[in-house]
Amino acid sequence: MAGTDHAKASEWGGPQPVMVLVGAQMGENIGASARAMWNFGLEHMRLVAPRDGWPNPKATAMASGAARVLDAVQVSGDTADALADMTYVMATTARSRDLTKEVLTPERAMERTRALIEQGQKVAVLFGPERAGLENDDIARADALISVPVNPAFGSLNLAQSVLLLAYEWRRQTSNVPAEVTKLAGTDFATGLEAEKLYERMVASLDEVGFFWPEDKAESMRLTLRNMLSRLPMTKADVRTLHGVIRALTKER
Amino acid sequence: MAGTDHAKASEWGGPQPVMVLVGAQMGENIGASARAMWNFGLEHMRLVAPRDGWPNPKATAMASGAARVLDAVQVSGDTADALADMTYVMATTARSRDLTKEVLTPERAMERTRALIEQGQKVAVLFGPERAGLENDDIARADALISVPVNPAFGSLNLAQSVLLLAYEWRRQTSNVPAEVTKLAGTDFATGLEAEKLYERMVASLDEVGFFWPEDKAESMRLTLRNMLSRLPMTKADVRTLHGVIRALTKER
Repeated sequence: MAGTDHAKASEWGGPQPVMVLVGAQMGENIGASARAMWNFGLEHMRLVAPRDGWPNPKATAMASGAARVLDAVQVSGDTADALADMTYVMATTARSRDLTKEVLTPERAMERTRALIEQGQKVAVLFGPERAGLENDDIARADALISVPVNPAFGSLNLAQSVLLLAYEWRRQTSNVPAEVTKLAGTDFATGLEAEKLYERMVASLDEVGFFWPEDKAESMRLTLRNMLSRLPMTKADVRTLHGVIRALTKER
Repeated sequence: MAGTDHAKASEWGGPQPVMVLVGAQMGENIGASARAMWNFGLEHMRLVAPRDGWPNPKATAMASGAARVLDAVQVSGDTADALADMTYVMATTARSRDLTKEVLTPERAMERTRALIEQGQKVAVLFGPERAGLENDDIARADALISVPVNPAFGSLNLAQSVLLLAYEWRRQTSNVPAEVTKLAGTDFATGLEAEKLYERMVASLDEVGFFWPEDKAESMRLTLRNMLSRLPMTKADVRTLHGVIRALTKER
């Protein structure tokens, strides 16, 4: 099923969410995800540590027609790098987890994405590896989670289908939206990189004073801190303030 | 991505549209379509003249987990037979045609389907063979057409993806699930009093180390901190964590 006459190419420009595929295993699935995206006009794909390296001839073959998505793909070694310039991150997940984060339907997720992008924010949607899904560390980076309300007796969306449904919802939500957006005056949200650096500084300072103890709890304490920071919608000014707080509290007496 | 806790099996019953695959060529695509349907609780598939006959082992293998859809499939020699008991037919199409029929988005199509089914009507959605799409004869049987508003520069939904989007829209339209879901179990937001005590502790600790300097800026620095903490949606656990962070950073070396 292809384009209808009422959909004009000129409606398809403007800022978009970035689709980030973490640890994708099969090139075919990366290619199919590119096609799924481009069907609904999404162009910005990032790959984190794709299993078979990059470029991947199987991805290219499968993407035929959506090559422009793969041509522009950005590849990173880890999720933090891929999200460095992002200001809001949503993670797709199949399971309810014990994390205290909002869980959104694709509909609400793309509604929010549209609103955030209209404010000038940079939004990423994270997808995990084909079978396993995202790891807790990556989930912890997200401001909110997305779960497709599938049949409780049978949920088996593959990677490209999950990408397709999000891309479809993005398009559905934005089809009447003017492509040009305006930034809300005065609010300058922190990027993923800025949040990451704040997290690292906090962890380093806390490590120095023996906060992460006992050792077998250290990892989960770090995860809690990361979860907390990722869930708090910080501005650049907030991040500066918190750096100042840490600096003040840790300086020698 | 699988089911979220709030989606109860009991919500999934009741009359549904019938998905009619006309002249499907590859068994894999029939199986994948069955999976797509069952993800969103659709059970009623009909096949018109599948190219490789029926049953088809490749369809069965691909449908794994959604076998109940294939077990109940009805096979007909021609479209007229397949639609004999239907009262309203929609045909999916990629191209605008010279036929004077309404063209609906998936959203409007499933909205109408829901309304018709509530009136006791029997609704079918026709899908054509993988490459060619429906023939004019079959299009002519339809009361209305469905076209997915894909990128005018690139439309390449495969059969199972088209089925998936319609099934998803059916579910979206008929779900009673509140779209914005769940604070997940265990989310217990901090009260104003708890936030205030955290603020006071932070201010006291920072005051001790000479953070609020120069004095004529002190008041606005306090205000910034209070603003920031009040804007961050903290849980009780976040507040405890931040108390722990302050305690650790301020303890005597």
